[in-house]
Amino acid sequence: MAEHLSQSELDYPFKLLEYFNGFRVSKVIFSACELGVFDLLLRSQEPLSAQHVAQELKTSVDGMERLLDALVGIEILEVEKTAGTAVYSSSDVANLYLARGSVKSLHDMIVYQSQTIYPLWNNLVDAVREGKNQNEKTFGLPSEEVFQVIYRSEEEMLKFMGLMNSSWVLDGHDIVTVFNLSCFQNIVDLGGCTGALAREMVKAYPSSTVTVFDLPQVVETAQKHFSQESDAVLFQTGDFFSGEIPAADLYVLARIIHDWPEEKCVTLLKKIYNVCRPGGGVLLVEAMLFENRRGPVMAQIFSLNMLVQAEGRERPPSEYTDMLKKTGFQNIQVCRTGKSYDAILAVR
Amino acid sequence: MAEHLSQSELDYPFKLLEYFNGFRVSKVIFSACELGVFDLLLRSQEPLSAQHVAQELKTSVDGMERLLDALVGIEILEVEKTAGTAVYSSSDVANLYLARGSVKSLHDMIVYQSQTIYPLWNNLVDAVREGKNQNEKTFGLPSEEVFQVIYRSEEEMLKFMGLMNSSWVLDGHDIVTVFNLSCFQNIVDLGGCTGALAREMVKAYPSSTVTVFDLPQVVETAQKHFSQESDAVLFQTGDFFSGEIPAADLYVLARIIHDWPEEKCVTLLKKIYNVCRPGGGVLLVEAMLFENRRGPVMAQIFSLNMLVQAEGRERPPSEYTDMLKKTGFQNIQVCRTGKSYDAILAVR
Repeated sequence: MAEHLSQSELDYPFKLLEYFNGFRVSKVIFSACELGVFDLLLRSQEPLSAQHVAQELKTSVDGMERLLDALVGIEILEVEKTAGTAVYSSSDVANLYLARGSVKSLHDMIVYQSQTIYPLWNNLVDAVREGKNQNEKTFGLPSEEVFQVIYRSEEEMLKFMGLMNSSWVLDGHDIVTVFNLSCFQNIVDLGGCTGALAREMVKAYPSSTVTVFDLPQVVETAQKHFSQESDAVLFQTGDFFSGEIPAADLYVLARIIHDWPEEKCVTLLKKIYNVCRPGGGVLLVEAMLFENRRGPVMAQIFSLNMLVQAEGRERPPSEYTDMLKKTGFQNIQVCRTGKSYDAILAVR
Repeated sequence: MAEHLSQSELDYPFKLLEYFNGFRVSKVIFSACELGVFDLLLRSQEPLSAQHVAQELKTSVDGMERLLDALVGIEILEVEKTAGTAVYSSSDVANLYLARGSVKSLHDMIVYQSQTIYPLWNNLVDAVREGKNQNEKTFGLPSEEVFQVIYRSEEEMLKFMGLMNSSWVLDGHDIVTVFNLSCFQNIVDLGGCTGALAREMVKAYPSSTVTVFDLPQVVETAQKHFSQESDAVLFQTGDFFSGEIPAADLYVLARIIHDWPEEKCVTLLKKIYNVCRPGGGVLLVEAMLFENRRGPVMAQIFSLNMLVQAEGRERPPSEYTDMLKKTGFQNIQVCRTGKSYDAILAVR
């Protein structure tokens, strides 16, 4: 990104203005997604006029026209003129990632970001000032009970689970194959939510048994809304902080450690170490910071997200390594994927 | 931008994820600005630790550290290690545009975007659905009275005027020099707000007289908070919709037309035409859309901003030209600057 904020920015700050505009570009895509624009364009066999889209989606023509044009500007849609009328069609990228029906749909991730994360970030100044999450100011809910807030209603729980689900639809395959995990027979995904990552594990390691371990209400919602026909993933209910952890050869902690302060993480890792079979292991999946603090931007931003919404942070590999060593794990291997999430494997 | 959303996005949607992250990057910069990070780093003669910055600005160390690191990631700050401690310093771009004291400071633009525009855009879905601004849903204020909402308190008026002011500090010089306006002796900037654009006119055309014409409370606030020593700009109070417009050789309408629906704009332009001296003219300053609807992104986004906050829209040159012709103006010249704002000059 070095070329962007170079000397030429001093003449006119194009890149800076683009950054200022970032929240509006996010909301253009989010709103189109929430209104069903990409679904309609995918279903349609031909390009549609703004009037047609507005009528189908029950919006104003004027507002829809501006939204569609902005989506053309950021190259998510295409426009052409047919008989004097502008008609819009979707792009392959929108069909694959933004339409709801696609197997790689990020629709649920978008809805959560738009409706829950965007308002939370309106209080970033206070989060930095106070050094704590803004659940109280944003939603009027106690800041100490992170997951009680996240799961505050069935609707919110579904939205959050949708976020996690679409995130693993995107990154799951890469994450489960960065290390060869075929030697682990019994795999338990602690806080495995909808089972999306577990399903990728079953696909990659068909001879392993993969169990999602999560809170009772999460497992119930997962089975009701996210289960698949002949689902090879098992589910087990429990609380890995207050209850017992089942025996296994490999424990997966995917975006769990980043929710909590170090002390709580070390307690959890110790608990896992104690039930882990010798030769068994733990796989941590997180967006890892560089040791030199210069990036990746995505991980730095996620770390602020943890400040605004939870009690944790993103960390560089050394901090995970230290925690793992402290609890007795060894043979620690770190693998960066170059995508959103990275992985660390350690063995008891 | 064509290369971004190409085939490779189908393998992994890096650019799309960057768009999703846009609102967070905006808020990182906005929040640092609101907390005074760039001012402190500019004043400081040496790089500062997160702890030092946090102490000076009365924030948590943890939150400040994450904020500073994210600013390093987007290359607005620099970090280095001194005696084992990370210390942060500012960039030339931040010193010039983000620190409060700089003559080119965009601080006030940022505050308005962060505190007023960001929450408004949380209701973009409803704006598109209803085809009208979201002042009522966002601030509980009537959507019909656009400027009563914008000027709803002295604090909000100051913020809005700050936005306009820093915007002309950035673009004013280019805008007043795209056409040679030295033939116009008496220039009136209708809705000229703080006088920032008028001051650029005086600088470029020292033998012309430039008068800002605006509502009484705006002029009062402009003179109290934004006037400069030996200010060469004159101020006159009035309402260009309901009252009389003073005689002049050139009328400037900078980001006025985009606030209103066509009918109201044509009425205003007719009124101007009627008082304009023969040989006199009107200068429209707006972010102009391309005729083919494909951009510029900034103008498309501004047009949605007008939907969310006002009653107007951004338009392609042909729409301004049509309105001007309809009211009798001729010799219409359009000039695109390639920056945020463009200009149209027409003569009576």
